[in-house]
Amino acid sequence: MSAPEIERLIQFLARLPGLGPRSARRAALHLMKRRESLMMPLAESLRQAAERLRSCGRCGNLDSSDPCAICADARRDSTVICVVEEVGDLWAIERSGAFKGLYHVLGGTLSALDGRGPEDLRLDALSARAGAPEVTEVILALSATVDGQTTGHYIAERLAGSGVTVSRLAHGVPVGGELDYLDDGTLTAALQARRPA
Amino acid sequence: MSAPEIERLIQFLARLPGLGPRSARRAALHLMKRRESLMMPLAESLRQAAERLRSCGRCGNLDSSDPCAICADARRDSTVICVVEEVGDLWAIERSGAFKGLYHVLGGTLSALDGRGPEDLRLDALSARAGAPEVTEVILALSATVDGQTTGHYIAERLAGSGVTVSRLAHGVPVGGELDYLDDGTLTAALQARRPA
Repeated sequence: MSAPEIERLIQFLARLPGLGPRSARRAALHLMKRRESLMMPLAESLRQAAERLRSCGRCGNLDSSDPCAICADARRDSTVICVVEEVGDLWAIERSGAFKGLYHVLGGTLSALDGRGPEDLRLDALSARAGAPEVTEVILALSATVDGQTTGHYIAERLAGSGVTVSRLAHGVPVGGELDYLDDGTLTAALQARRPA
Repeated sequence: MSAPEIERLIQFLARLPGLGPRSARRAALHLMKRRESLMMPLAESLRQAAERLRSCGRCGNLDSSDPCAICADARRDSTVICVVEEVGDLWAIERSGAFKGLYHVLGGTLSALDGRGPEDLRLDALSARAGAPEVTEVILALSATVDGQTTGHYIAERLAGSGVTVSRLAHGVPVGGELDYLDDGTLTAALQARRPA
């Protein structure tokens, strides 16, 4: 029907999260109307990012240098390692500005359902890094899902006896959140972890 | 924070309709995880489409050939011209399979609010095409919005006395709806029940 170039472009766009076949068509038309200002720059940006970015051999972050800018930054606190599932989680914590240590990207969680075992995650690398003499604490910043928590327990057990403190993110009421909209699990956790006002 | 290559990619992705800054970040990570299978092919597909596709000089459709495959197809009924606002509308009608004539893409609608007058649309080209001896009917397949209907009236008046029948899509097009979002059945019904303008 349409030119094969368009059909192919729509098919690729439809594989992005958040875009279905219909919105991919809209996106393709949007791009075609902005050939010079958006379409060519996006193509070039994709090519550059795909060519230049690589996983940091130390923490698993995506960067154009290896080790990445965070691992290479001498001002970061190398005594604390924050364990996250994906690079996107690392970005989220960096945006908060609340953490000045180093990271370790697992590349996912353990999952019986999806058949992901310990050997599929960067767990040996984590053990090795946590064993370094300067490291005193490992923070588990994992999703509050069954898989995330299972992975957390697994890591905590594995690092037990290594001398590092293993901590996890606090559960509680999200800042700005309304009690009325919270699920029971979060409320229970927030009540149990209550603090002096 | 992240590498500049990632930030730039996210910025471009966020300019696609349907993706905001947050989903653009997710899309960028999704792409980075599928470097060979999706990211590079998408970049190449964008480049190819941007380089090869052009507007058909006759009808305004996007295609790699000029005249486009529809205009060049001798089996299409050249006595009927279907006027649409955008290429996406042409695609929608082609998907319905209910129309075998030729198209004319206006490139938008008249709009007092956005300051689009007759000279901003491909209206002279339409008059010229409608004046050809073989053309007997012009179907106005425009959105059932104020601007779409205004544009339809304008075209009907302009073609009055030229000897061609000017028809419009039947009601069945939901008022306020955009063609690109209609299902095939509604489009087919609207085409079949078209009426004199």
